[in-house]
Amino acid sequence: MIFVDGLECSAFDREVFEELRGGGLGCVTVTCGFWEDTTESLDALVRWRDLVRANADLVGVATTAAEIEAIHAQGRTALLLGFQNSSFLSGRIGYVEVFADLGVRVAQLTYNIQNDVGASCYDPVDGGLTRFGREVVAEMNRCGMAIDLSHVGERTSMEAIEHSAVPVAVTHANPASLVPHARNKSDDLLKALAARGGVLGVSGYRNISGEYAATAATWAELVARTADLIGVEHVGIGSDLGRKIGEADLRWMRQGRWTRTVQYGAGSAANPGKQPPLPWFPDTRSFPDLAEALAGRGFAPGEVAAVMGGNWMRFYHEVLPAGRPAGEE
Amino acid sequence: MIFVDGLECSAFDREVFEELRGGGLGCVTVTCGFWEDTTESLDALVRWRDLVRANADLVGVATTAAEIEAIHAQGRTALLLGFQNSSFLSGRIGYVEVFADLGVRVAQLTYNIQNDVGASCYDPVDGGLTRFGREVVAEMNRCGMAIDLSHVGERTSMEAIEHSAVPVAVTHANPASLVPHARNKSDDLLKALAARGGVLGVSGYRNISGEYAATAATWAELVARTADLIGVEHVGIGSDLGRKIGEADLRWMRQGRWTRTVQYGAGSAANPGKQPPLPWFPDTRSFPDLAEALAGRGFAPGEVAAVMGGNWMRFYHEVLPAGRPAGEE
Repeated sequence: MIFVDGLECSAFDREVFEELRGGGLGCVTVTCGFWEDTTESLDALVRWRDLVRANADLVGVATTAAEIEAIHAQGRTALLLGFQNSSFLSGRIGYVEVFADLGVRVAQLTYNIQNDVGASCYDPVDGGLTRFGREVVAEMNRCGMAIDLSHVGERTSMEAIEHSAVPVAVTHANPASLVPHARNKSDDLLKALAARGGVLGVSGYRNISGEYAATAATWAELVARTADLIGVEHVGIGSDLGRKIGEADLRWMRQGRWTRTVQYGAGSAANPGKQPPLPWFPDTRSFPDLAEALAGRGFAPGEVAAVMGGNWMRFYHEVLPAGRPAGEE
Repeated sequence: MIFVDGLECSAFDREVFEELRGGGLGCVTVTCGFWEDTTESLDALVRWRDLVRANADLVGVATTAAEIEAIHAQGRTALLLGFQNSSFLSGRIGYVEVFADLGVRVAQLTYNIQNDVGASCYDPVDGGLTRFGREVVAEMNRCGMAIDLSHVGERTSMEAIEHSAVPVAVTHANPASLVPHARNKSDDLLKALAARGGVLGVSGYRNISGEYAATAATWAELVARTADLIGVEHVGIGSDLGRKIGEADLRWMRQGRWTRTVQYGAGSAANPGKQPPLPWFPDTRSFPDLAEALAGRGFAPGEVAAVMGGNWMRFYHEVLPAGRPAGEE
């Protein structure tokens, strides 16, 4: 069994990497940026390279599913480099390949504001995937960069699912029919995602999991109901964990540079701040407890393995490049 | 025998690639930029990738000496991606690795104006390689990016030769003792370059080769005198050919964005414009004639092969990465 976390936004350092090892994680997608433009995104990749090099005994960057498995087999945690926005492209279709060649393997089409690709889940009007957005989807397919729709608007998401030649992901969200929230996803969307072979990373993040965030058992109930909705083979974990994220980080995520006003992201004026850690999942060392909770809820061993990481691995085998990056001969 | 041109600044298109094939060139270093910052340099790389893909029957990008030889063996011309400035770094040491991973294999430390790395050959004062410059030299060594000193100032060049752990190149210049010109190199510098195993690409570019530009025979005489000075094993060709370069291109090279005044580069007020093509070397289809001219001047067959490309290949084997790029595991 391999444990995979489909999305974290932690401020990683050696201690947080050690927590990954403490939980026995095989793979985690890290967040390299939210609003950063091309140069700032390259800066982030440079920092990530240096950070990974300095902690190569614990983690390694994976660019293929085979590399994830090899790093896992070495007793290390594979990292997939991801961005929660397409702002690193700065509007250039050619930069998909450039960033893929630099190891980026997951990108969300939009973060919390409409961009040149499409609309976010917080925009009142969603005009769908733009003409540039269609090009980006096709180019991400070609270059083996996974498409993430977690913060993306409904119509843009539906059109991305439709236009993508390979399965796409919602790395960290829940069904809105179980937890009503702008960040969560309609049954229609999740069923379309599943019908094309995609995966949803169920999240215990308090703001989008509501009462299911209470205990590991209630979280397992959320997973069970989600599996009933779209099939257990399309359900994974996307903790959205933000270890060591401070108020300034949270402000950058929520406000970026697009507003001078206070924004609450998935929170609200009544619930403005950083959420306290989940007592049953303070960090990734609790990953084995999640497997236990799923078994306790009645998932069969094969289903537990699928949700804990097997489904993500199937997705990565389908979507990530098989061999060398797209730009090389 | 493999023909190598150490530096061209042509505006490449299919016709110019066909000229490379017409001359049987095994490898040429192309100029991807002069003054461009990081994003503009990525844009240039994207254009180059598309251009090479569209002409893959004629050319291929090489990232190792072995790849040069493989592409040459396929009857195509290997291209080394080069920049004539370090402006693509935008002051970031980490971008050496990033651009190396994207296939860049040659970079000049400065173009025609002092930068954060050092001084150019046209600056009245040359304070030498900066502290950042030393870092850049070491990082280029580590990442297998060849250091080019053609337009670099004397002291900065001497210190780069000294600090580099591997041989460095002057891809396109001549000995100043033979053709006095700010762009040409002192005997001291060339001897230091050769002592460390470097290579000088002798150029027939009119502005820096003077009377030696008259015929293939006078050019061969320039090569012979240069070989007498630093040893034939350190002499290659760097044509500095600018096929299809127009006035706007020339203005960009010479003035960039650093001045509103007219600049003449290696020319002068009395000699301001684009130089007419050399009748004996209008384009690279004349490369075989150069070999003949060298033989006519009395070079032995092994020496002809060394100057025509063998010396550059030895340099590439020493300096370019042996295997996968530096940033990958």
